[in-house]
Amino acid sequence: MQSRELHSNERLDDLMTSSGLKIIQSKEVFSFSLDAVLLARFANVPTKGKIADLCTGNGVIPILLSDRTTASIDAIEIQPRLVDMARRSVAWNNLSEQITVIEHDLRTYPSTIGNTVYDAVTVNPPYMTVQSGEIKGNEHYAIARHEVLCTIDDVANTCNKILRPGGKLFMVHRPSRLLDIMEALRRWRLEPKKIQFVHPNEQTPANIVLIEALRDGKPELKVMPPIVVYDQKGVQQI
Amino acid sequence: MQSRELHSNERLDDLMTSSGLKIIQSKEVFSFSLDAVLLARFANVPTKGKIADLCTGNGVIPILLSDRTTASIDAIEIQPRLVDMARRSVAWNNLSEQITVIEHDLRTYPSTIGNTVYDAVTVNPPYMTVQSGEIKGNEHYAIARHEVLCTIDDVANTCNKILRPGGKLFMVHRPSRLLDIMEALRRWRLEPKKIQFVHPNEQTPANIVLIEALRDGKPELKVMPPIVVYDQKGVQQI
Repeated sequence: MQSRELHSNERLDDLMTSSGLKIIQSKEVFSFSLDAVLLARFANVPTKGKIADLCTGNGVIPILLSDRTTASIDAIEIQPRLVDMARRSVAWNNLSEQITVIEHDLRTYPSTIGNTVYDAVTVNPPYMTVQSGEIKGNEHYAIARHEVLCTIDDVANTCNKILRPGGKLFMVHRPSRLLDIMEALRRWRLEPKKIQFVHPNEQTPANIVLIEALRDGKPELKVMPPIVVYDQKGVQQI
Repeated sequence: MQSRELHSNERLDDLMTSSGLKIIQSKEVFSFSLDAVLLARFANVPTKGKIADLCTGNGVIPILLSDRTTASIDAIEIQPRLVDMARRSVAWNNLSEQITVIEHDLRTYPSTIGNTVYDAVTVNPPYMTVQSGEIKGNEHYAIARHEVLCTIDDVANTCNKILRPGGKLFMVHRPSRLLDIMEALRRWRLEPKKIQFVHPNEQTPANIVLIEALRDGKPELKVMPPIVVYDQKGVQQI
């Protein structure tokens, strides 16, 4: 059985769910953000079957999804330190039967797990190209933020293989890269069907985009009502 | 001088501008809609230079733009009946020096006018593919609504040729076809830089998208704050 202990420099955060879910976090590695919470809410995952969460980090998305599905969830992460934290968070929440944390490079994951395995995939990939701006922080932050170990094309390629036909991909990303994302998804037969933009407030451009794509879907995109985080008085709406 | 007369089955509509602009319309041909008004507002056209409006129809967009720019505007339309209406509307508003209505197929227009002629192009193209759904109404409606005489790729190809490097394209279209549009624009070196979605109200998916693309621009998309047409009480906001 996985240890439930908390290491030094780690803290146990409450995920603010009615079911009392917790997560282990540390300043030394990338913590989950609003993006992950919004993706977990946006992802219309099946109530049973098999789900994969790529780039799972500390496992926040599978843990949040456990509130809404009994599907078995494989959580894939390349960094051993984050894999260890995710496993201990899963154990802490008594979710070890539902969630399996797998240490793997997502680029080679299909050859390990096989094709057309999953009914749904969620992913919160690195947002920034390696070229774009200075890489800040330590290696853990760099891998989580920049396309050091996987590009958007790598993510789409892997999803194309591991999703069954008709399976759904749910992704969160930055609107500035919307075209690159959409093109990569289409290239790998993942047709974008729904997108939803998140605006900090009514007057500001979107800073987050949520995307649902369908494996082998027909072209017909729906742009959902926007999510506005703060109202005109500065009160958080979500 | 162009005749200012009104033919039978035509009416003179007020464009509700402070400058008192008018337009000739008829039930027998496609009338302008909210799309055109939103495109004219969205289009950040230069205050001088040369502008083209493709698929100009009855000329509503050039007429509305005349309030905000002294640039000379070429308005291109393939249907003779609409060309005639547009010319009479231009004359009625005393805009014949600024706006020239040209009867031309936009697919062959670059060979007539030459390359890199315009600083900006506006276009409200047909929205529906010929395959999608029944073609309703008469031939005038069919040409205005369906891609009978020009596809989104034809529009992008022509804009690529007639826009100068650094010139801007402003387009209005349907969100369901966003990917096709974006891909066609990129294929013809028109990089989408700003998009804005229009929602009937806060709870409904977008039904209009406004796009600004830059000839030879770098990839970096901004998703502007959404436009919501009706507020929660059903009062029109725009």
